Amino acid sequence: MFKEFTCKVKIYYEDTDSGGVVYYANYLKFFERARTEFLNSINLSNKMLLTNHGVLIVVKSCNIEYKKSAKLEDELEIISSVISKTKTSFIMKQVVKLDQVLISEAETHLVTVNQEGKPVQIPKILNDFLD
Amino acid sequence: MFKEFTCKVKIYYEDTDSGGVVYYANYLKFFERARTEFLNSINLSNKMLLTNHGVLIVVKSCNIEYKKSAKLEDELEIISSVISKTKTSFIMKQVVKLDQVLISEAETHLVTVNQEGKPVQIPKILNDFLD
Amino acid sequence: MFKEFTCKVKIYYEDTDSGGVVYYANYLKFFERARTEFLNSINLSNKMLLTNHGVLIVVKSCNIEYKKSAKLEDELEIISSVISKTKTSFIMKQVVKLDQVLISEAETHLVTVNQEGKPVQIPKILNDFLD
Amino acid sequence: MFKEFTCKVKIYYEDTDSGGVVYYANYLKFFERARTEFLNSINLSNKMLLTNHGVLIVVKSCNIEYKKSAKLEDELEIISSVISKTKTSFIMKQVVKLDQVLISEAETHLVTVNQEGKPVQIPKILNDFLD
Repeated sequence: MFKEFTCKVKIYYEDTDSGGVVYYANYLKFFERARTEFLNSINLSNKMLLTNHGVLIVVKSCNIEYKKSAKLEDELEIISSVISKTKTSFIMKQVVKLDQVLISEAETHLVTVNQEGKPVQIPKILNDFLD
Repeated sequence: MFKEFTCKVKIYYEDTDSGGVVYYANYLKFFERARTEFLNSINLSNKMLLTNHGVLIVVKSCNIEYKKSAKLEDELEIISSVISKTKTSFIMKQVVKLDQVLISEAETHLVTVNQEGKPVQIPKILNDFLD
Repeated sequence: MFKEFTCKVKIYYEDTDSGGVVYYANYLKFFERARTEFLNSINLSNKMLLTNHGVLIVVKSCNIEYKKSAKLEDELEIISSVISKTKTSFIMKQVVKLDQVLISEAETHLVTVNQEGKPVQIPKILNDFLD
Repeated sequence: MFKEFTCKVKIYYEDTDSGGVVYYANYLKFFERARTEFLNSINLSNKMLLTNHGVLIVVKSCNIEYKKSAKLEDELEIISSVISKTKTSFIMKQVVKLDQVLISEAETHLVTVNQEGKPVQIPKILNDFLD
């Protein structure tokens, strides 16, 4: 059972802006990296889901709050967990921390769709890890 | 008085991903471009706000919904409006359309802060255009 | 005949880094935007080249020199010209200027390939504009 | 003595474009990440170089060749080495490989500058590792 998945992101120049902090859109990149790393941790990948199951995970909505800013060469932790689930979608909460301090947090609504973009059942191989 | 501000964004390769669509985080880039273009349209800029008024506009939260996907070389319209306001912050609604079809929409909570990151009153020169 | 094609790029927060200047990789984005705008200016697009001619333009090499830095809200000019050509490839020189001052310049080797990645003849509809 | 420094980069959706491959500008991001990781491996960082030595490493030129494309979820190796050096600058060769296959390679001319952008001597703490 999947309770919480943690991965790390180091901040490089590419992630920052001239305000001296991480550019606000880039947190959504980190969240997507964390979701891919989660898949990898259960021996899945986006490529496998598509090739073997005809399924893509797409973002339906994302609600992000920015609490503190992060800076160049910070090492952030992204902590992801599933907070609700239907047959074809799930909501992930993703929290960004720097040394235990909350940087930002988001709730992302994810849907499994087929190649035509129609919602389809979450493949069992993934679903088993979302409880 | 500022009712609605529209600007255009063309989709280049850099904006897309291997799913064949605009990468979901990039809409937040488009929203920030649109906010900067709005400032420019009223003869302001982020640089002027900082230099002349000691003020930065920072994002406190962003709630985005993805309705349809956009593709390479699409020409999107970003329609921005202010839907509420306090002395130190305002909420902007930003809608992305392609040929009148809704692609995504977001509500973004923006705060005017000083260089120490403390919320400060919205400069009059900007505030006058947010009603 | 195509001598020189100029397009403009405004610098937004997304383009800058915490050094206070445009992040060095982003100039390659601007060059690609300029190439797409050039295609559009002759009533072509990447999509049309692919759909109607089965051709993609891919980058084989890029040699960029950075002369001066650009900053937030600068309005850059990208001046593109073709400096040499074979049946399946061409070299483009692309110069970035801010108020007539040279910011950076690059030579990019571009190849027209089919969907299997094999070099193919530059479609006449494009070739006519590269002389 | 520093002969060769290797680090890994996994390809996420953010790195790809609608051509189905890694977007060409993003290799420059990977090279910069690799340079930062190299600094970290010798107990340095961009932040330390700036704070303790008043020095920034800036890119003067970059010459990149693209050999093969990389795709979503590929795990690339970036192999960096210093191929020449002066008192204030050095040239780094950076090679990208996927399972021993050459994807791209670049030579990047890097200069150490002070906060006014003037070239200054490479700090000894860094210089010792560039031989």
